[in-house]
Amino acid sequence: MTTTNVTTTAEVVITPFLKAITQQIRANDPYGTYRNWSDELLLKPYVLSKAQKREISVEGDVDPITKGRILAFYRAIAHRIEEETGLLCQVVIDLSHEGFGWALVFSGRLLVVSKTLRDTQRFGFDSLEKLEAEGAKIVESGINLANRFPEVGRL
Amino acid sequence: MTTTNVTTTAEVVITPFLKAITQQIRANDPYGTYRNWSDELLLKPYVLSKAQKREISVEGDVDPITKGRILAFYRAIAHRIEEETGLLCQVVIDLSHEGFGWALVFSGRLLVVSKTLRDTQRFGFDSLEKLEAEGAKIVESGINLANRFPEVGRL
Repeated sequence: MTTTNVTTTAEVVITPFLKAITQQIRANDPYGTYRNWSDELLLKPYVLSKAQKREISVEGDVDPITKGRILAFYRAIAHRIEEETGLLCQVVIDLSHEGFGWALVFSGRLLVVSKTLRDTQRFGFDSLEKLEAEGAKIVESGINLANRFPEVGRL
Repeated sequence: MTTTNVTTTAEVVITPFLKAITQQIRANDPYGTYRNWSDELLLKPYVLSKAQKREISVEGDVDPITKGRILAFYRAIAHRIEEETGLLCQVVIDLSHEGFGWALVFSGRLLVVSKTLRDTQRFGFDSLEKLEAEGAKIVESGINLANRFPEVGRL
């Protein structure tokens, strides 16, 4: 068991963004369930293959665990933007009953991140590398916006 | 009945903002329940005295009818800002299970309205005049912001 863990951990680079996701997950772990879990194990549910996604129904509500996963993803983005810009960011995830909605990260009156969400029941990435790449892209675009309109972000 | 209606309607001035609220309510009336209701009657639940508010528990979830009322209020604000600025606004209401949360109205990357909400179970105003005054204040502040940062609102 330990050996498997060590072997796989060696392959995965835990970037600052991936680390931020695990910190969000650990911050919402009142019973210490994840205390002894590796970062990689915590991030595993973010990786879904196309086949796995197809198996998830997009009818009806998004389950609370998936919702929590989406929230941790965008809170990690907010955290990274805060680190790089010094702004204080808020995160709001607004999901309708059909898996559609908004993910918003804002500071002052500036929406540093504004994403429409759909089929959120199937929220996931092809690999941890894709998760990192997608997160880094959103973080970078948020930082650029914050630098472009500092006055709005500090309102 | 008709007489009472006429008498009270004569006292109430239905401003563009109050009208916008009633339009939001009527837009979400799939069974035509409110078809024959006067604007004033539709707006009545927005008026709560201090004593009435005290009677409403702030423990637990906000009931869906109150949520709908808050949404109609902020959608009416968004509608008025759209009319005055030509921007297209989105409304997101994010309520936690304890009646706390955010009311956001945004266009592009600009948050024209950003309000923290609390004790939303007791959402209401002393009178229709107060409802109009509060709405007008938020609309005006939103318009000012949109005019100050047109570039962000059009992103």
